[in-house]
Amino acid sequence: MKLYGYWRSSAAYRVRIALNLKGLEAEQVSVHLVRDGGEQHKADFASLNPQQLVPTLVVGEGTDTPLVLSQSLAIIEYLDETYNDCPLLPAMSAERARVRAMAQAIACEIHPLNNLRVLQYLTGPMGLDEAAKNSWYQHWIHEGFGAFEVLLEQHAGEYCFGDSITLADVCLVPQVYNAQRFNVDLSAYPNMMRIWANCNKLPAFSQAAPELQPDAV
Amino acid sequence: MKLYGYWRSSAAYRVRIALNLKGLEAEQVSVHLVRDGGEQHKADFASLNPQQLVPTLVVGEGTDTPLVLSQSLAIIEYLDETYNDCPLLPAMSAERARVRAMAQAIACEIHPLNNLRVLQYLTGPMGLDEAAKNSWYQHWIHEGFGAFEVLLEQHAGEYCFGDSITLADVCLVPQVYNAQRFNVDLSAYPNMMRIWANCNKLPAFSQAAPELQPDAV
Repeated sequence: MKLYGYWRSSAAYRVRIALNLKGLEAEQVSVHLVRDGGEQHKADFASLNPQQLVPTLVVGEGTDTPLVLSQSLAIIEYLDETYNDCPLLPAMSAERARVRAMAQAIACEIHPLNNLRVLQYLTGPMGLDEAAKNSWYQHWIHEGFGAFEVLLEQHAGEYCFGDSITLADVCLVPQVYNAQRFNVDLSAYPNMMRIWANCNKLPAFSQAAPELQPDAV
Repeated sequence: MKLYGYWRSSAAYRVRIALNLKGLEAEQVSVHLVRDGGEQHKADFASLNPQQLVPTLVVGEGTDTPLVLSQSLAIIEYLDETYNDCPLLPAMSAERARVRAMAQAIACEIHPLNNLRVLQYLTGPMGLDEAAKNSWYQHWIHEGFGAFEVLLEQHAGEYCFGDSITLADVCLVPQVYNAQRFNVDLSAYPNMMRIWANCNKLPAFSQAAPELQPDAV
């Protein structure tokens, strides 16, 4: 397997965690999201992933029919369906729905508003200054994390949903990393920070950290 | 089942389509997203869904253990796992991953940037004018639809993924409706518009249209 990613991409970080949890090896290919206007827009990568986004996971590269997967949640559910170790979703549909909803509370409500291309568009074509960009970033973090903290009060144990690692934890840890990078005060989210710390005690999480990746600067 | 939604919400529209495809009845409860600063922020609804977002599906209301589901994709996968009629994901994991990625190309990359709360935040606290808001909207539609059209060239048949209705179609139709409402020129996306028309020939799609809902204005 080949994982096209970038050390600081939260979505690639999710997939790195999932691969580690499953005990899977993937060769990392760095797609530098900033250099030269973004390597994700170059023809080679765009032909692999028309969305020009990381992560992209290629399964069976070099075979006649490589499988090219995009979108981090879709990639992780594929890995979860294909490799049984460390299941990332509960067995019962009602519980699966709750875990997926928690994951999507991050992946559909926070991350899409605060990722690099959006922040670049705000300060570029939209003409906002750094202070406005920062207040945009903080607003969506607090909006999303405030709701997530309530979900944790209802469902958390050692981890986001009870005492087993799930897809929700895989999404939470990179989002907390990202918020810390932007100096967001996270003291209003004690459950979240407790779970973030619990996750990072596990090598699958700690070894997926951006700073430990080969392309980290 | 009770579906808390709003006629113009794209995410609620997705769930209405899925319920129709599955042949399921749900009582619709309107949560007016604009009136009085947004009914989704009132205490009653916020206690049901801490994210204060529609849709929210309550299964078994009035029983001792009602199941309260949030996030449209999580709700739809729950329905798909629980009711076998008209499966919305293919049987094979590799194909499921592709369909989920197509759905997420809309639900994680386009819709989160262009929904009501985001547009309100741009023209409110961010201080952008209507023209800037409109150019923001158009930008993310074209960015997302441009990539989606390429995915359709690779995977579409009668519908987004081959000749069966999937979760990707359930996401596409409300997003096209939304783009049309903002007068986006969609002529560059012939596959998308062909599939949109094919879907709307089916009563499950056409009867889920915003204008036909009880709370439509």
